[in-house]
Amino acid sequence: MKVVALTGGVGGAKLVLGLQQILPAPDLTAIVNTADDFRHLGLHVSPDIDTLLYTLSGKANREQGWGREGESWAFMEALRELGGEDWFQMGDMDLALHVLRTMRLAQGDTLSAITAEFARRWGVDVALLPMSDDPVATWLHTEEGKLEFQRYFVERRCEPDVSRIEFQGAARALPGPGVIEAIGRADVILIAPSNPYLSIDPILAVPGIRQALIDGTGPVVSVSPIIGGQAVKGPTSKLMAGLGVPVNNESIAAHYAGLIDALLVDSGDDLLASLPSMRTPTLMRTTEDRARVAEAALTLARGVAGK
Amino acid sequence: MKVVALTGGVGGAKLVLGLQQILPAPDLTAIVNTADDFRHLGLHVSPDIDTLLYTLSGKANREQGWGREGESWAFMEALRELGGEDWFQMGDMDLALHVLRTMRLAQGDTLSAITAEFARRWGVDVALLPMSDDPVATWLHTEEGKLEFQRYFVERRCEPDVSRIEFQGAARALPGPGVIEAIGRADVILIAPSNPYLSIDPILAVPGIRQALIDGTGPVVSVSPIIGGQAVKGPTSKLMAGLGVPVNNESIAAHYAGLIDALLVDSGDDLLASLPSMRTPTLMRTTEDRARVAEAALTLARGVAGK
Repeated sequence: MKVVALTGGVGGAKLVLGLQQILPAPDLTAIVNTADDFRHLGLHVSPDIDTLLYTLSGKANREQGWGREGESWAFMEALRELGGEDWFQMGDMDLALHVLRTMRLAQGDTLSAITAEFARRWGVDVALLPMSDDPVATWLHTEEGKLEFQRYFVERRCEPDVSRIEFQGAARALPGPGVIEAIGRADVILIAPSNPYLSIDPILAVPGIRQALIDGTGPVVSVSPIIGGQAVKGPTSKLMAGLGVPVNNESIAAHYAGLIDALLVDSGDDLLASLPSMRTPTLMRTTEDRARVAEAALTLARGVAGK
Repeated sequence: MKVVALTGGVGGAKLVLGLQQILPAPDLTAIVNTADDFRHLGLHVSPDIDTLLYTLSGKANREQGWGREGESWAFMEALRELGGEDWFQMGDMDLALHVLRTMRLAQGDTLSAITAEFARRWGVDVALLPMSDDPVATWLHTEEGKLEFQRYFVERRCEPDVSRIEFQGAARALPGPGVIEAIGRADVILIAPSNPYLSIDPILAVPGIRQALIDGTGPVVSVSPIIGGQAVKGPTSKLMAGLGVPVNNESIAAHYAGLIDALLVDSGDDLLASLPSMRTPTLMRTTEDRARVAEAALTLARGVAGK
């Protein structure tokens, strides 16, 4: 069974890790948001791809939720001494990804090729496909003006109210190599419990991807990021409230209307009236949680496909 | 008394540190070789400037002879995991200099301005002037073909025989801001005991610098890199032998003929027949050695100037 997951960083990586535990890795493809990518200190940072790489290779710092286990910070200290911008943390080991990626991009390699090479080096057999090799950048229109994603997310800690979200470059971006094909041959497509507005929408904004999901024969199932009427973490709840959308699963279903066939919701939340749904505890703290949620999502997909 | 020192990395930095101990820092200018600069992993590395910055700010690793005291190597380990080139060592703290410099150069800042800013941040009051803000690159014509400086020096450990040395870009390079002026108003000009062929010649190859030394009123004194018929360290002896030049102080004097007024030689070597010279133990192991050699060079300069 070929499974494709559309995913952002932390939350999505947990689902993909769960899938990796219950399915042969070569049957798995993760289509990863790259609209959080940005240049910092001249280096190309791909936060979601890196989170997937760290998570699937067993290198992720689980407590922190981002970055690498056993990371050290000598670079940041030296940077501070020299007056460099220090609002975005770059660990010493993490830097190797950024420096090599930046060098290879400058040499004309694609983000897809570079990501595949990193995955191969670290023994990750899940196909990690950037949504696009073309630059797409999330900008937030806020009460404080227009902010680039990382400025809003990291530097301003999602504090400014957001009125509109823009994916610069998306209209001209091509889907990454293999993206459309992977969706086309997938038996199941999962949308990870990543932020729908910030992590999944940019993927859907790349021309061709939404249509491929609609055209595909595999059922599309989303794992809701809502647990007990709140988003698990990050700015989802605040963002939904700011955009005037009730923070509940019906809103998630409405957001993905026409795209998903079913929604996996938390056992503490109500089943949907509008769409097939199933309940399971969706909070993923442990390795077992991850596998269980992944299994539940596949069960739901099989149920929908069998209809 | 205004003193200017022409210098490469390690050996030269010791003399400049000696001068810093016996003279007010604002009276000191170091004109630094930049022909060893290169791009590695997409980052602009300025080895001699960095050695001066580390040495004069008290951050240098004295035992190792290069790099920073207390350096860590997590980046290099991670780089190796990812299959990155690891023949050139970049410490975690060292990276901050390379990353910031590369970013600021890309933004259009000059190497001079960036170097001055780093020096200011670290409380270095000696003026550190790159010989040029334009790219100059040392290439070695060897039995193994044409090698870029760091490939020859670091990767090949100076093993290939050198037939010719080329300073690419030198003919079109302008002296760095303040270089000609500093030489013009210097009361004494010292040529550090750096490698004459690899560290000092590139400085002299920048149009205008040699003439400024000739036109200047201050005496020019070189501290010989020869001790007991051998170069203290590095490839000087091997290089001289390969170029068919006897490894002795007369060769150094001949190399700088028309440029220097006197040569400071080691107490174990003979005084020169061809040029004013003075003897002192020139090996600089301790802080006191550095100050003593600097003092001796100034004494010799005063003697020559008084003639």
